[in-house]
Amino acid sequence: MDDASAPWDGLLLHAHLVTLAGEAGWGVVEDGALGWRGGRLCFAGPRAALPGDPAQLARTVHDAGGRWVTPGLVDCHTHLVFGGDRAGEFEQRLQGASYEQIARAGGGIVSTVRATRQADAAALLAQSLPRARALLADGVTTVEIKSGYGLELESERRMLQVARRIGRELGITVRTTFLGAHALPPEYAGRADAYVEAVCDWLPRLHAEGLVDAVDAFCERIGFTAAQTRRVFEAARALGLPVKLHADQLSDGGGAALVAEFGGLSADHVEYSSEAGVAAMARTGTVAVLLPGAFHVLRETRLPPLQAFRAHGVPMAVATDCNPGTSPLLSLRLAMALACTYFRLTPEEALRGATVHAARALGLDDRGRLAPGLRADFVLWDIRRPAELAYWLGGPLAAQVWAGGRQVHGTA
Amino acid sequence: MDDASAPWDGLLLHAHLVTLAGEAGWGVVEDGALGWRGGRLCFAGPRAALPGDPAQLARTVHDAGGRWVTPGLVDCHTHLVFGGDRAGEFEQRLQGASYEQIARAGGGIVSTVRATRQADAAALLAQSLPRARALLADGVTTVEIKSGYGLELESERRMLQVARRIGRELGITVRTTFLGAHALPPEYAGRADAYVEAVCDWLPRLHAEGLVDAVDAFCERIGFTAAQTRRVFEAARALGLPVKLHADQLSDGGGAALVAEFGGLSADHVEYSSEAGVAAMARTGTVAVLLPGAFHVLRETRLPPLQAFRAHGVPMAVATDCNPGTSPLLSLRLAMALACTYFRLTPEEALRGATVHAARALGLDDRGRLAPGLRADFVLWDIRRPAELAYWLGGPLAAQVWAGGRQVHGTA
Ligand SMILES: [Zn+2]
Ligand SMILES: [Zn+2]
Repeated sequence: MDDASAPWDGLLLHAHLVTLAGEAGWGVVEDGALGWRGGRLCFAGPRAALPGDPAQLARTVHDAGGRWVTPGLVDCHTHLVFGGDRAGEFEQRLQGASYEQIARAGGGIVSTVRATRQADAAALLAQSLPRARALLADGVTTVEIKSGYGLELESERRMLQVARRIGRELGITVRTTFLGAHALPPEYAGRADAYVEAVCDWLPRLHAEGLVDAVDAFCERIGFTAAQTRRVFEAARALGLPVKLHADQLSDGGGAALVAEFGGLSADHVEYSSEAGVAAMARTGTVAVLLPGAFHVLRETRLPPLQAFRAHGVPMAVATDCNPGTSPLLSLRLAMALACTYFRLTPEEALRGATVHAARALGLDDRGRLAPGLRADFVLWDIRRPAELAYWLGGPLAAQVWAGGRQVHGTA
Repeated sequence: MDDASAPWDGLLLHAHLVTLAGEAGWGVVEDGALGWRGGRLCFAGPRAALPGDPAQLARTVHDAGGRWVTPGLVDCHTHLVFGGDRAGEFEQRLQGASYEQIARAGGGIVSTVRATRQADAAALLAQSLPRARALLADGVTTVEIKSGYGLELESERRMLQVARRIGRELGITVRTTFLGAHALPPEYAGRADAYVEAVCDWLPRLHAEGLVDAVDAFCERIGFTAAQTRRVFEAARALGLPVKLHADQLSDGGGAALVAEFGGLSADHVEYSSEAGVAAMARTGTVAVLLPGAFHVLRETRLPPLQAFRAHGVPMAVATDCNPGTSPLLSLRLAMALACTYFRLTPEEALRGATVHAARALGLDDRGRLAPGLRADFVLWDIRRPAELAYWLGGPLAAQVWAGGRQVHGTA
C-alpha cells in the first residue's frame, strides 16, 4: 500500500483558514479543513472539497469550533538562550543611571556574557526554556536561536546545545545560528582581528557537531567591521553554511549590500540601509528582518526603508529579537503589532512577516503557508477576523498550537 | 470562639513578598509568608515571625516554591465590555484609509455603539468575558469597567449588568463606572445639552439598581464641554457618587482642575494637564491615571506632566484603558512596561500604579498592598526580581492568581 492511499493521521474540521497562498491577501478559506499524514499537510482547502467522508479519511478528526487557523508562526531572530538577567539594569536606567554608568558597574552585554559562561547546561536550559515556551504559547512553531553570549568555544557550544535541546523538549523546530561575532569578549580587548580568527576556527568544529544551521555577525561601528564580517562569512561559505547579518541598525555600514554579496538569507534590523543596499538584497532574494521590539525599547526614530523594500520586492519578516538587553519580548504577536504601529505594516504584511517570509529568512521552504506538502504546523486562534492577530496587545489568543501534526500547546 | 483565635483558612509559605508597605520601595520580605481568613490577610511578613507552627496555624498550607508574590493587580480604567470589533478599521487605517474615510463609512466609536446596542446580554458577556479573563491571567484581581457604548438607558444598563456578571463569573472584584457622557449618540446630533440632561436622568435609576460605583465623562473639544461635565458631576454628587474624568488627553481643557473641584477619585490620560491642574489634584488627593496604551496606539508625543505629579505628590496609577478603538490592550503588565518606556516611570512606580495607587483611584483602601486586614488578593510570579514585572513584554508570568483567599487562575 503506498503512502498516498493510507488514511490520514488527522483531519481538522470547522475551521476558517488563513492559508497565505499566493503573493498577496490572507488566502481565506471559510469552512475549511486541514488533513495531515506523517507530519505534513495532505489537504488544505474547503471542507466541501474533501475527497471523501471525513470519518473514513483520517484516524482522528478534530473540531476547530469555527476558529481561525493560520500557519504556525516562525520567529526568525532571537537570542533567547542566555544566563543572568538585565531587569535590574532596566530599573537602574529608569532611576536615572546612564548607559556609561551601567557599563562601568559591569552591566550591559558583558554581564550577560559573564552569567552565560557561568551557567551550566542545566541552568541555561532551566532559564531559557520558559522563554521558548512563552513564544510557543503565542503560536510559534519554529524559532531561530543564536549563540553569541558565550564568546568562547565551550560556552558558545553550550548555548547551541541548549538551543537544540529546547526544540526537542517542546516538539517545535529550532534553527541554530552561530553568532560568535556578536561582541568582543574582554579577554580580546584591542585584538578584534584575533578574536575573529578564533571565531572562524570554532565554526567548523561546532558545525561538525551538528550545532550550526547558519552564521550571523554584528556589523556596526560598535561591533565588527565590514572586513571582519567578510572574514566570518568566508568561513561560513567554506562550509556551505548560509549567512545573515545584524545590519545597519544604528548607522549605514553597508551591511545590507554585504550580506547580499554573500547571497545571505537575511539582513536584520536594517533601519539605516541605503537604497543601493535594498536593491542588492532584492537581487539575491535576501529577506529584510524587522525587529520592532528593539526599536521600541531603544526609542529609535529612524524607520527602516519600507517603501524601498516594497518597491524592490524585498520580502519583509518580523521577529521578536528576544534578548535581555534591548528586546525583552516574549510574544511574536506583539512584535507584529509593534511593526504595524511603528512601521505601518498592514496586519497581513505582519502575518506574512511572521510566517512565510520568516521561514524564507531561515532558508525553509516547507512551512509558513497552509498547503499540501508543507509541514502540519498550525495554530487555532480565538479571534473573529485575521487582522486581530496584529491588533490586540497581549492576551492569550492561541487556543491550540500544532507542530508536525502533533498538538504542542493548548486545550484539548 | 472569637474570629481571631480561629485557624486561618490558608497559609502561603516559601514566598518572597513585594508588600509595597510604606510610601516608597518594594517592601521586600524574603522568605515571607501570607496568612488569610475570611478573604482577608491576617499575616504578611517573614516566615520566621509566624506566631506558631504552620501546620497548626491554618487549615491549608500552600508552597509558593520560592516565587515572588505581589498584591493582586488593579486595572482602574477599562472599557472592556463592548460589542463588535474594530480590528477591521485598524487594518483599513494601515492600508491607507483616513480617520475621516473610516468615519464616513460608519466606523469609529459609532460602530461600537451600534454593535453594543444590538448585542443582547449573553452576546455581550460571551465577547467581553475573555477580555477580562486575559487581564486576570496576567494578575488582575480588581478591574474597573465603564459603560459608554450604549448611550441610551437600556444599553447602558446592559453594559453595567454584564460588568457585574463578569465579576461573579471570574471571582474577582469589578467596579462599575457610568460613562453615559462618553460620546454624543447619533439621535442627539446637535443637541448635546439635551443628551447630558438624559444622562443625568438615567443616572439615579441605574444607581438605584446597584449598577453604579462611580461616574465618569469625556471632557474634550471632541467630547463634552466643561459646563456639561459639571452638570453630570452635580448629578453624581446629588447621589453621593464619586466622580472621575477623561481629562486633558488631546488638549488642556482644565479637566484636572474640574475633577479636583468635585473631590474626584482620578483624572485620567492627563497628557495636557497644566501645573495649576496638578496642584489642584494634589490638594484633593485626586489620582493621575496614566494610559500608555492609547498613547502608543495614537502615536502621541505629548508626555503627561510626570515631574509635576511627583513634585506635588499626586499619586500616579497605570491602567490598560482596554477599548476597541485606541487601546486594544489585554495586559496590565504591558501597560506598566509601556509606562516605563514612554513615560520613564520606574518599575516600582509602575507596580504601585497598578496596585495601591490604582486602588486609590477606585476609592478602595482595602487592597493594593500586602498587609494584615487587607483583602487576600495576591499573585505568584515566575520572575527572579520584582523589576521584571515591568520589563518583559508579553509572556505568561503569573503562575497563580488569588482573590479574596481563593485561587482564581493558574496551576495548582
Ligand atoms: Zn539580534
Ligand atoms: Zn478611557
